[in-house]
Amino acid sequence: MSRKTIGIDKYADFDDWYQAVLREADVVDIRYPVKGMIVWRPYGLKALRLAQRILMDLLERTGHQEAYFPSLIPESIFAKEKDFLEGFGGETFVIEGTGTKKFNEKFYLRPTSETVMYYMWSLWVKGRRDLPLKMYQAVNVFRYETKMTHPILRVREIMGFIEAHTAHATFEESEVQIREAVGLYKEFFDRLQLPYFIVKTPPWDTFAGAEYNYDFITVMPDGKGLELGSVINLGQRFARAFDIKFMDTDGNVKHVYQTCYGVSERVLGAVIGVHGDEKGLFLPPEIAPIQVVIVPIAKPDEKEIHEYARRVKEYLESNSVRVYLDEDSEHTPGWKYYFWEMKGVPTRLEIGPREAELKTVTIARRDNAPKTTVKLEELMSSLNQAWREVNKYLRERALEHLKKLTTIVTDCSTPGERTKGLIVAPWDGSKRDAEELEKVFNRGVLGEITESPIDLPPASNYSTCSGGKADRWALLGVTY
Amino acid sequence: MSRKTIGIDKYADFDDWYQAVLREADVVDIRYPVKGMIVWRPYGLKALRLAQRILMDLLERTGHQEAYFPSLIPESIFAKEKDFLEGFGGETFVIEGTGTKKFNEKFYLRPTSETVMYYMWSLWVKGRRDLPLKMYQAVNVFRYETKMTHPILRVREIMGFIEAHTAHATFEESEVQIREAVGLYKEFFDRLQLPYFIVKTPPWDTFAGAEYNYDFITVMPDGKGLELGSVINLGQRFARAFDIKFMDTDGNVKHVYQTCYGVSERVLGAVIGVHGDEKGLFLPPEIAPIQVVIVPIAKPDEKEIHEYARRVKEYLESNSVRVYLDEDSEHTPGWKYYFWEMKGVPTRLEIGPREAELKTVTIARRDNAPKTTVKLEELMSSLNQAWREVNKYLRERALEHLKKLTTIVTDCSTPGERTKGLIVAPWDGSKRDAEELEKVFNRGVLGEITESPIDLPPASNYSTCSGGKADRWALLGVTY
Repeated sequence: MSRKTIGIDKYADFDDWYQAVLREADVVDIRYPVKGMIVWRPYGLKALRLAQRILMDLLERTGHQEAYFPSLIPESIFAKEKDFLEGFGGETFVIEGTGTKKFNEKFYLRPTSETVMYYMWSLWVKGRRDLPLKMYQAVNVFRYETKMTHPILRVREIMGFIEAHTAHATFEESEVQIREAVGLYKEFFDRLQLPYFIVKTPPWDTFAGAEYNYDFITVMPDGKGLELGSVINLGQRFARAFDIKFMDTDGNVKHVYQTCYGVSERVLGAVIGVHGDEKGLFLPPEIAPIQVVIVPIAKPDEKEIHEYARRVKEYLESNSVRVYLDEDSEHTPGWKYYFWEMKGVPTRLEIGPREAELKTVTIARRDNAPKTTVKLEELMSSLNQAWREVNKYLRERALEHLKKLTTIVTDCSTPGERTKGLIVAPWDGSKRDAEELEKVFNRGVLGEITESPIDLPPASNYSTCSGGKADRWALLGVTY
Repeated sequence: MSRKTIGIDKYADFDDWYQAVLREADVVDIRYPVKGMIVWRPYGLKALRLAQRILMDLLERTGHQEAYFPSLIPESIFAKEKDFLEGFGGETFVIEGTGTKKFNEKFYLRPTSETVMYYMWSLWVKGRRDLPLKMYQAVNVFRYETKMTHPILRVREIMGFIEAHTAHATFEESEVQIREAVGLYKEFFDRLQLPYFIVKTPPWDTFAGAEYNYDFITVMPDGKGLELGSVINLGQRFARAFDIKFMDTDGNVKHVYQTCYGVSERVLGAVIGVHGDEKGLFLPPEIAPIQVVIVPIAKPDEKEIHEYARRVKEYLESNSVRVYLDEDSEHTPGWKYYFWEMKGVPTRLEIGPREAELKTVTIARRDNAPKTTVKLEELMSSLNQAWREVNKYLRERALEHLKKLTTIVTDCSTPGERTKGLIVAPWDGSKRDAEELEKVFNRGVLGEITESPIDLPPASNYSTCSGGKADRWALLGVTY
């Protein structure tokens, strides 16, 4: 049987590579006949669930409580904040009845949950003691995207959208919350070894109904930017629209200040695109559905080797390792190596006659570091060490990836060469200058860079493309 | 401040009691202005999540893998099995466009996932090696119920529906699967200390498109039956409609045999109704968001007591106990006792001067067993013991509850007294006799009892209400 490997250069042909990985590694099935809606296969979903668990734990640890608000929003509530309605109405699915009955009112299938949530908050918030209010929910949201859809990266049913919402007594407190949220997301993406820019979006491109927002942006192998998450300061606009007020300690009734922030299944798309390679998927150990695959190197009748392999498996399970013992006798060990590397399993244990005799195991890493053979009693510490090194490898390779696909421009006169990837360019923050940048580089201004994974010199050393003085760096890109 | 207690007899006025518990214990908020759709507050949702986790672990342990299939089902797929379309079409929400655009095709918002799932399975199943296929998903499903809605018990957005689906090579294997599923559900409901009848539904009342199904039925304090879960043998009808075939080892291409089974948030409604009492909620320790509340009996300046209470809290946390330390200085310990009992917390630790001095804790149980004082180093074993006893108490009280609301009838002539609850009556299995039973007892026949929490004599000792010979027991009830 032929080797299971992807064998496509993701930088040369990302679409083919991506589709092959999604299919061969059993991540999702794209054959469901509704555009922008995909089926999650167990292996891919498990990785997503593990990633979601990290984020939900981070949220819970910082006092966000999980709640659940309905999927269907009556028009009377959905239409309360007019910028929001304008921003989302056209891309929101509408329900007007059942198979046999027409309703009196329209229902919107949530594209995001501000309206349904804040309607209830107006009933819940009364005094300063009710603040801050910090909640999250993990739900699917639905957007009739008019941009081209891509599996996982841009879909019409957004899967496992973990959206957090907060309310505060003062604007200052809401800004402290924004910093907490940015910190949470940094930890989350760092643990997935994803590199990112943080940008503050320009005022003319903020979330509908918001004061300002920060976006986390990474880059995919085709050079397109991917928004990983968004942290939004909503100010008081929703509070006014939904009448969320509290009696302050000074006796005055005031509107709350709000923030919200969300991350979706896209983060797994980023993990796939950023960390994958010609062999296939490469999953960070923390979210790998199988962290260790055990491949016995033995004929079916070499019972003591198989028995020892099972003992190792049980030992790992008792240490809460996600392990799979591949006892399939149809394939050779070599075939299995390729297969499980394609599936992104970060570490493999090879167990042959020598290992069984000496009670050792041989550890092989997905990144092809030299194999090591260790005693069984050292296995857990060796695996933990191996995973740290795998993570370091992924982090460094991901940063190389991002550097390769990001051009820092200090001179606008040679735009022609930069055909692929993100652009970092000096900017003065004005809309006029942004338009100039967009024209020169044929990409959208995603925002002002507030944090960069690549060291940047002071922008004020450079002129803008419009010829003025720059005071910040803009991030430009074509995005999913 | 007045005591927080419910103070209503759930048997005398279930609706008032239930609404008060949902509100005061922060389970759900029913003020969302769409009929049949409710908001889950963090405390209630946490209990539900813990219950769901038990069931999902049971499913995973028996080889069911989590997958995810889209919420929107195009009409072409939804309409493939005609009994299913007839059974579900009228109660399914339909999407025909966005706020600004009309689509060419209608989409159904899933009322259950057979159609979307089996469409994909026809692409996945090829040979005997692909069978059995055992999957589950935990999703929300939507049904435009025409019956009266009740919070949690009968809703239009069903929350956390854990639906499992399987495919098999033979009918025999599908029946083995049915037994496995029934066994899983028994373990699940048993761990929640819920008593239930298992009935096989009459042929004229099976799930749309099914061969037969088993329902788990418990009874609520108002005497209404509540279906906790359903286990369905689908036979080959969906396999034929969706063309799910495999090449058998004998070289013939055959349709698969299918089963499916599901449990929803209703199970938490049952826990609330069956275990709650005049004090309020009473949660089994395994799903209590707070398993232990610590109440210091100390003035704010009695620092050593507060410090000791915090030490006890940390000790419990390090043992993975869900614990809350109530340090609020506004309320008396007595007020707190009532409050946390109302919230259903199964065990309370009281820590006063004596406990702090002797390094002991006093354990009080929600069921009002005598308090015990134990040394800190014995706390975990004492708590585990207390929880076993709490479970035993709940199990026994729940069985009393069910007995109180179930009448075993062996003589049809005195139906008038049985105004409330379930009826167990002799039956011959015929539709004619079922109609007679329904007329006599003014309740629906829910099915033939295959397992009863109450000992039943052989039905063949009795005559049916139509005057013939009985060979089984029927369960009758008015249901949610």
